[in-house]
Amino acid sequence: MKKTVIKILQRPRLRKPILIGGLPGMGYVGKLAAEHLLEQLHAKKFAEIHSPHFPHHVVIEDGGVLRALRNELFYVRAGDNDIIIWVGDVQPISPEGHYEVVEGVLDVMKTLGVKQVFTLGGYATGKYSKVQPKVIGMGDTRLLEKLDARGVVVERKGGPIIGAAGLLLALGQLRGIPGVCLLGETHGMVVDHRAAQAVLRVLVDVLGLKVDMSNLEQRAKATEQTIDRVRREMELRERKARRREEEEVWYIG
Amino acid sequence: MKKTVIKILQRPRLRKPILIGGLPGMGYVGKLAAEHLLEQLHAKKFAEIHSPHFPHHVVIEDGGVLRALRNELFYVRAGDNDIIIWVGDVQPISPEGHYEVVEGVLDVMKTLGVKQVFTLGGYATGKYSKVQPKVIGMGDTRLLEKLDARGVVVERKGGPIIGAAGLLLALGQLRGIPGVCLLGETHGMVVDHRAAQAVLRVLVDVLGLKVDMSNLEQRAKATEQTIDRVRREMELRERKARRREEEEVWYIG
Amino acid sequence: MKKTVIKILQRPRLRKPILIGGLPGMGYVGKLAAEHLLEQLHAKKFAEIHSPHFPHHVVIEDGGVLRALRNELFYVRAGDNDIIIWVGDVQPISPEGHYEVVEGVLDVMKTLGVKQVFTLGGYATGKYSKVQPKVIGMGDTRLLEKLDARGVVVERKGGPIIGAAGLLLALGQLRGIPGVCLLGETHGMVVDHRAAQAVLRVLVDVLGLKVDMSNLEQRAKATEQTIDRVRREMELRERKARRREEEEVWYIG
Amino acid sequence: MKKTVIKILQRPRLRKPILIGGLPGMGYVGKLAAEHLLEQLHAKKFAEIHSPHFPHHVVIEDGGVLRALRNELFYVRAGDNDIIIWVGDVQPISPEGHYEVVEGVLDVMKTLGVKQVFTLGGYATGKYSKVQPKVIGMGDTRLLEKLDARGVVVERKGGPIIGAAGLLLALGQLRGIPGVCLLGETHGMVVDHRAAQAVLRVLVDVLGLKVDMSNLEQRAKATEQTIDRVRREMELRERKARRREEEEVWYIG
Repeated sequence: MKKTVIKILQRPRLRKPILIGGLPGMGYVGKLAAEHLLEQLHAKKFAEIHSPHFPHHVVIEDGGVLRALRNELFYVRAGDNDIIIWVGDVQPISPEGHYEVVEGVLDVMKTLGVKQVFTLGGYATGKYSKVQPKVIGMGDTRLLEKLDARGVVVERKGGPIIGAAGLLLALGQLRGIPGVCLLGETHGMVVDHRAAQAVLRVLVDVLGLKVDMSNLEQRAKATEQTIDRVRREMELRERKARRREEEEVWYIG
Repeated sequence: MKKTVIKILQRPRLRKPILIGGLPGMGYVGKLAAEHLLEQLHAKKFAEIHSPHFPHHVVIEDGGVLRALRNELFYVRAGDNDIIIWVGDVQPISPEGHYEVVEGVLDVMKTLGVKQVFTLGGYATGKYSKVQPKVIGMGDTRLLEKLDARGVVVERKGGPIIGAAGLLLALGQLRGIPGVCLLGETHGMVVDHRAAQAVLRVLVDVLGLKVDMSNLEQRAKATEQTIDRVRREMELRERKARRREEEEVWYIG
Repeated sequence: MKKTVIKILQRPRLRKPILIGGLPGMGYVGKLAAEHLLEQLHAKKFAEIHSPHFPHHVVIEDGGVLRALRNELFYVRAGDNDIIIWVGDVQPISPEGHYEVVEGVLDVMKTLGVKQVFTLGGYATGKYSKVQPKVIGMGDTRLLEKLDARGVVVERKGGPIIGAAGLLLALGQLRGIPGVCLLGETHGMVVDHRAAQAVLRVLVDVLGLKVDMSNLEQRAKATEQTIDRVRREMELRERKARRREEEEVWYIG
Repeated sequence: MKKTVIKILQRPRLRKPILIGGLPGMGYVGKLAAEHLLEQLHAKKFAEIHSPHFPHHVVIEDGGVLRALRNELFYVRAGDNDIIIWVGDVQPISPEGHYEVVEGVLDVMKTLGVKQVFTLGGYATGKYSKVQPKVIGMGDTRLLEKLDARGVVVERKGGPIIGAAGLLLALGQLRGIPGVCLLGETHGMVVDHRAAQAVLRVLVDVLGLKVDMSNLEQRAKATEQTIDRVRREMELRERKARRREEEEVWYIG
């Protein structure tokens, strides 16, 4: 694996598909929203993405089962526009890796005739807030106007977007695929189902979908538990990382 | 995008062209000077540069419009020697990236028949100074002598030059394209239109151009405002970066 | 050497071979166990691995003899399933390097018809313990069940695995080669022959091999002496590393 | 320049040539010794090496003249064995870069029929010493025995060698070219002509050459002056580096 591999398990024929991306990031907002969406819509997996630009860890699932870190592509038939959903365990570890993975996904999207892209994510405020989180929109002018026309409340704000959420739009735009990034206001340090809900409400409104939000809180809790479990492993792991460094220095034969 | 892409929008036919490079760096001196020059000369864009060696951010413009980070090439007809101007949002993030982008630009320059290169930048002193900033010149011996002969006051000083301003000259020289780097004395921590002006005065004098400098101060102020706006975003972003790192460590499934 | 080179010294014909991997890591558990196994089974070397993703050091052996860092592949005939053993001086230095080396080894394993993979390593607790170290197993469900069926006591636990021990299994699984990772509980800061023994006991039990463990303790002591010798070199070397950094910055002609 | 380029200016025909390598490193010992040797032997340059794995700086020479960082290959006719000398401004910045440059040089050496390699360097003790510096030898057993047979006093010691001095030998050995590394005992923090002299004495003794050592001290002083000049630039440059980092973070349009 010298470069990113996108393994197509089954190539779907889709009507004017729209790509929705939600990878891990601020408050897990994008990942929570996208994974909730694919569950509610009973989306089908059609591709797996592995990359040497992902971390060289592995995922341990329940019962000690082990698998490589990956991203996945799902699809679902949905009226005039079918929907593709990009989710995953991780984002690439380097800028070069980000460019490679995003371009690879765009190659696949081109062959599937994707017309629009929505990326979902969080926008860190560093504050806990009890009010309904705002949703910020950035990207293609005409798509943003369409959001306005539909009465969707989306703030427009300049600010840097790091990673796949922005890069997918920017490189898609260069290929003539317009898109919008929807970022939910979040603390940043906690898994935030409310921000995910806010972002998802805007998205389903724009796409004319119906999605039950009730399970989203539950999913956020499950994610928090996973994180807690891993957090306990962290002390050991950090020691391990430091140790590995020393070992590399010590070891000579 | 596995490597740097230089998209030629329209290939101009040029008379003995001279390349002028001004990318972001110390005090934004080179960028300010080069962008002021291209505005005053009504230069036309003819190429866009994208690279996986640029940061994986995106640029957010007014109204929430979003685009990929890029460099741009402009040209302008100007007497005996037409002029090409290289400007951009960023420099590459790694030494390897610098070599790749500079070589790519030189490939294009070769096909356009470029005869000389001038790169513009700042030279940090760490001090605020009220007097007219000095301009330091480094590079090809004969071009430096020509500056002397024209009465252009240019100090010659040894000192390391990091990044595109030096590398473009050094790699151009290996291909037989002579060049000079003009660096304006600047504090280093502030956007410095006066240093940009000093550098640009030397350049237009050498090239026999006429350029109105009055807007340069205004442009420096606009740049400062942009930076201030972004600076406010920075606290959040730094938190985000730290957070992302922890997430990458925590996340396993 | 632009990429990893696996030099096959002599290609063996093997019966349903099983790959056992033990590279340097936590407490040297995997390396100690795998090297003890290959000695006891009088395994034969059939391949050497060199990689630009290994550190740019060299190994100095007794009498001042010097060689490149490497990994090695050995084989041994052993009943129904022949055995291949992967050992080495180091692991790659980057995630991309890990993916490249592991994929390269898997390419060779495919041509040799490998049916299963066991990787050996340590699991850091940060505590010294006098009791018999536990062995943790992760990986393929059916292989884990087989361990249960044989009465092998293996705990199953989620936790991140970094490096070749996990990645070999994860990428092997993608190619249809099931595997299990056996990690011995260890302090993490010391060379741990007891953890290596515990891991090796599980392995030989599963594979139905007979291996004398008595030399393992002796080997661990010799390794500790080597480390002491190297530790004395360390102060000089760290000074050297710091010095090199300064030199790179200072040097211009 | 995607990869290392070795430009052969003029391909010499050589008798059983021996390669001598002396790049910048501990106390500049190898560089001083190799450059002194090439001056005394009036060696001729026949190749230049440029690499994207060198730092993205440029060298500023007297009078503001600027050139790319490089390595150089010289040759000199010298009895039974002609001599090739590898010197340079810098070593590569990454392990991968080291492997690429060393392999590139070895490719050229193979075509020139090189039979042996000697690399020169320093061995840091961290102490100033008034006595004659010891010379440590590591590498090929038979070459080391030959040194013994000639009465050359060379200590043999295990210790890590980082960078080109070790890697050239290790990768040369894999291609069947034996070699020895000669390291002179040095403080590490100062340009050390005495260590260079000690190393060079061993080398010329082995090779049966006659070299006047009187200029070596002078050369060391000149090198120290260059370093002092650059050191004064360093404060500014470090500020520049820090500044560039902040700018990269701030900059968005």
